Amino acid sequence: MQSEEMVRLIRLLSKLPGLGPRSGRRAALHLIKNKETALAPLAQALHDAQQTIQTCHTCGNLDTCSPCSLCCNPGRDQKILCIVEDVSDLWALERGASFKGKYHVLGGTLSALSGIGPEELKIPTLLNRLRHEEIEEVILALNATIEGQTTSHYLQSQLEAFPLRITALAHGVPIGGELDYLDDGTLTTALTRRRTL
Amino acid sequence: MQSEEMVRLIRLLSKLPGLGPRSGRRAALHLIKNKETALAPLAQALHDAQQTIQTCHTCGNLDTCSPCSLCCNPGRDQKILCIVEDVSDLWALERGASFKGKYHVLGGTLSALSGIGPEELKIPTLLNRLRHEEIEEVILALNATIEGQTTSHYLQSQLEAFPLRITALAHGVPIGGELDYLDDGTLTTALTRRRTL
Repeated sequence: MQSEEMVRLIRLLSKLPGLGPRSGRRAALHLIKNKETALAPLAQALHDAQQTIQTCHTCGNLDTCSPCSLCCNPGRDQKILCIVEDVSDLWALERGASFKGKYHVLGGTLSALSGIGPEELKIPTLLNRLRHEEIEEVILALNATIEGQTTSHYLQSQLEAFPLRITALAHGVPIGGELDYLDDGTLTTALTRRRTL
Repeated sequence: MQSEEMVRLIRLLSKLPGLGPRSGRRAALHLIKNKETALAPLAQALHDAQQTIQTCHTCGNLDTCSPCSLCCNPGRDQKILCIVEDVSDLWALERGASFKGKYHVLGGTLSALSGIGPEELKIPTLLNRLRHEEIEEVILALNATIEGQTTSHYLQSQLEAFPLRITALAHGVPIGGELDYLDDGTLTTALTRRRTL
């Protein structure tokens, strides 16, 4: 009862992360009902993004130029490099607006099961950057998951050969967090790493 | 830190029903990372949908032709007309595959607050259809919400002038539903309209 064009649009929308068949149908209907205000601008934005956005060959960020605007910005601290798993993590740190150095996006985590080794991630590129750029500190800002921390340990072993300060994000109680709702691991870490006031 | 193209794509995706700023970012990243398998097909599907899909002038369904394939289908019962609020309700009934008549999509519900009167909905078109088509039964399949039922009552008063059988969907316990989880209104209705076995 739905035309082939509609079925295809719903199928593709349903595949977006966070959407399923039902929300895909809702999104498709919303787009079709608002052709001028929603569908046409989205089609144009997708087209523009496809044409212009690329991966930065230096840091792995997504931008319209390579090297990206972050890599090219002379106002940022050239001596601190923050290593993140994904572009979304870079965005999250930039929203915080407290880090003023440069980034390196790995593009994932090491995973023996999925066959993802150092070569699949941007680790060779990272080591190359460390050889040629004047970096004094590397911040390991990987996710506090098993995979993130495994990758973090591996990186630490690789980076020890360089004359660098290697740091990692602090673990503990999130700002605004209630102790009663925290998991045991976080609470234990927060207690162990308590600071003197 | 994000390019204008990326910001625009995220903003438009975030506006889709069911998505917010965070899921909009996730969807945008997913699309950019999978240009060939996700972004390009979606852009094409949006373009095709924009070009081909239109509202059926007879029943208000969305299809690539007007009158739509449901209206043109001689295999469907021409004597029963099912009135629904929205195209999504028509799709829901078609998924059920138990209704074999024709549809009429109102495009919303009456709402004095939002200034939506009979003229804003497809009610004049409906009355026109009833005058010219040989319809014997009208099923009021509006949502069981206050707005849906108000519209249903209004339609009932309008349809009394026609020599028709006017019916409405049954209310009661949903199939698979547990009494303990049902609201009082549904339970009361299910009790009042109990049937003899």
